[in-house]
Amino acid sequence: MSLVEQVMGEVNQVMGMIDEKQLKDAESVIQKDKRIFVLGAGRSGLMAKGFAMRLMHIGYTVYAIGETITPSIQAGDVLVAVSGSGKTSSILELTEKAKNDGVKVVAVTSHSDSPLGKMGDVTIVVPGATKAGDGVKSIQLLSTLFDQSVHITLDVLCLMLSRRDHVSNDTAKATHSNLE
Amino acid sequence: MSLVEQVMGEVNQVMGMIDEKQLKDAESVIQKDKRIFVLGAGRSGLMAKGFAMRLMHIGYTVYAIGETITPSIQAGDVLVAVSGSGKTSSILELTEKAKNDGVKVVAVTSHSDSPLGKMGDVTIVVPGATKAGDGVKSIQLLSTLFDQSVHITLDVLCLMLSRRDHVSNDTAKATHSNLE
Amino acid sequence: MSLVEQVMGEVNQVMGMIDEKQLKDAESVIQKDKRIFVLGAGRSGLMAKGFAMRLMHIGYTVYAIGETITPSIQAGDVLVAVSGSGKTSSILELTEKAKNDGVKVVAVTSHSDSPLGKMGDVTIVVPGATKAGDGVKSIQLLSTLFDQSVHITLDVLCLMLSRRDHVSNDTAKATHSNLE
Amino acid sequence: MSLVEQVMGEVNQVMGMIDEKQLKDAESVIQKDKRIFVLGAGRSGLMAKGFAMRLMHIGYTVYAIGETITPSIQAGDVLVAVSGSGKTSSILELTEKAKNDGVKVVAVTSHSDSPLGKMGDVTIVVPGATKAGDGVKSIQLLSTLFDQSVHITLDVLCLMLSRRDHVSNDTAKATHSNLE
Repeated sequence: MSLVEQVMGEVNQVMGMIDEKQLKDAESVIQKDKRIFVLGAGRSGLMAKGFAMRLMHIGYTVYAIGETITPSIQAGDVLVAVSGSGKTSSILELTEKAKNDGVKVVAVTSHSDSPLGKMGDVTIVVPGATKAGDGVKSIQLLSTLFDQSVHITLDVLCLMLSRRDHVSNDTAKATHSNLE
Repeated sequence: MSLVEQVMGEVNQVMGMIDEKQLKDAESVIQKDKRIFVLGAGRSGLMAKGFAMRLMHIGYTVYAIGETITPSIQAGDVLVAVSGSGKTSSILELTEKAKNDGVKVVAVTSHSDSPLGKMGDVTIVVPGATKAGDGVKSIQLLSTLFDQSVHITLDVLCLMLSRRDHVSNDTAKATHSNLE
Repeated sequence: MSLVEQVMGEVNQVMGMIDEKQLKDAESVIQKDKRIFVLGAGRSGLMAKGFAMRLMHIGYTVYAIGETITPSIQAGDVLVAVSGSGKTSSILELTEKAKNDGVKVVAVTSHSDSPLGKMGDVTIVVPGATKAGDGVKSIQLLSTLFDQSVHITLDVLCLMLSRRDHVSNDTAKATHSNLE
Repeated sequence: MSLVEQVMGEVNQVMGMIDEKQLKDAESVIQKDKRIFVLGAGRSGLMAKGFAMRLMHIGYTVYAIGETITPSIQAGDVLVAVSGSGKTSSILELTEKAKNDGVKVVAVTSHSDSPLGKMGDVTIVVPGATKAGDGVKSIQLLSTLFDQSVHITLDVLCLMLSRRDHVSNDTAKATHSNLE
């Protein structure tokens, strides 16, 4: 079996364990009249940013924590926090602070019973291997399988949102950055 | 004379050459019902981001080109482009594209007759030394004196805007990111 | 068929078209005694950064164009440039400049005969749908399928590199950022 | 008095209180055979990045915490942490972790007796006004005066380093990013 096939075997296995009901719950929280904030560290952070960028294309008001123009988060906002292990300390600290301030939390992690998983008003479990060595076993390094599966999972959520909101490819293209 | 005094001598010299009339012209272009985009490379880019962050605190809709959630720029938007030499190729290319699309350009550069300086609907001249060796002479490396002077110049513009808009320190603090 | 299954059907289709020979060619260019630079805009840029981060974990000297501490690129360096359409103007301009300076180019794009595809000393073709509407057809918005497939493809390349270099999970974990 | 003059009055006042002895202490810690990491949030983070970029131009191995290719920090490394109030929670948490791991800390803050100020093996006091309302009084919003003064202070440190290391403008220019 080629390396591509082995890796795709792993991704297919994790994606087969995604619970679309959890995505539906997240979908119901993400609304046009809410501000959505995304949070993640390392490669999880890049996946969170990719999700934020696509939400922007679909027409949401969205911010990535740590970027230049991100304002204060307030009661009524939504925070999507991503951590494979569910234990990344800065992610936990900021998510807890937001939750205490009345922010709705969508947790994305490999374990529903991790500290982050427990904080979620909605928790999306993506059981790919993480740095901590848990989740579906993988021949890939560190949290690679988690990153890949989170990427696709959040894109499926974007697909659900774009259909619910009747956003066409042309509409999304018109919003896409034209200075690059 | 201490090094601090020598460097402050340079900064004071450049800041003494800032034309507040140009800042007034920029102020009149930057309005709450406009979207403001900032653009810069290297340390100029960091200064542009610092300006964007403060504009956000004052209550503007502002985006930094290249960041995650920056949408397409459109006719009627404002682009603040920063380049010491006024010749940075990507800055010129993107500014020209935006200008052709009907975007109002605020150019911030050391030379009014540089390519970027000529593109500005409003041009703010900050004559600090740049990488190209022009501007006020400096004992500091590369464009350091330009960066320092741009920083303070754009902050003076923020002060003008916050006064015009009656934004207090407390109002700005409430908008400042609370997840850091 | 569930949405997850439909999306995975698309990803499996694209990944089935990846030519591992092209990955082998890229592997031979990426060496510990070379400096590797990555370049991409938008979501392609996030994928390029994810690749750079993993290369760092495996032990490479790697830089992301546009980040703070990225030095000048020189003859003998390697540039990995990612663009789905192969036509993103800033990517083309910077890649051409680097190529003229003697930099080895690894192009990652959906079309071998796009401008970027033709610039590659090595070209990795990832035929997922892009913003331009080419590549494998997709129910997902814009270049989503390209992004997903590039992500996994570059991770397969990382797997090849980590095996060639005998980098274990523990070694990679020791290099992973510990301040997050 | 013009607004520029009022602002420069503030900057001159703060810079007159900079203790070059503290910069000399920082200079002695920053060496070519050390890895330097910089850390800051918000506009302080932008100033930290500007410092890191210039250190790179001068020839140092330097990383900005939170960027793509930043590896783990280890005993023997140097961490330059910037916070006006000296109380930013993530900065404190990460600095404390690094210090416990044997990292040498250069703290840059408005108060030597703030939590961050006390953590510094070397502390550079920049007494500009901060969000918390302390430091030299200012007509500018939030931590603007601190940001401006930190910018110039760290540039003076760069000037000291470039002279100690005999780095000319041409040498620095050759290292400056050429893809922008």
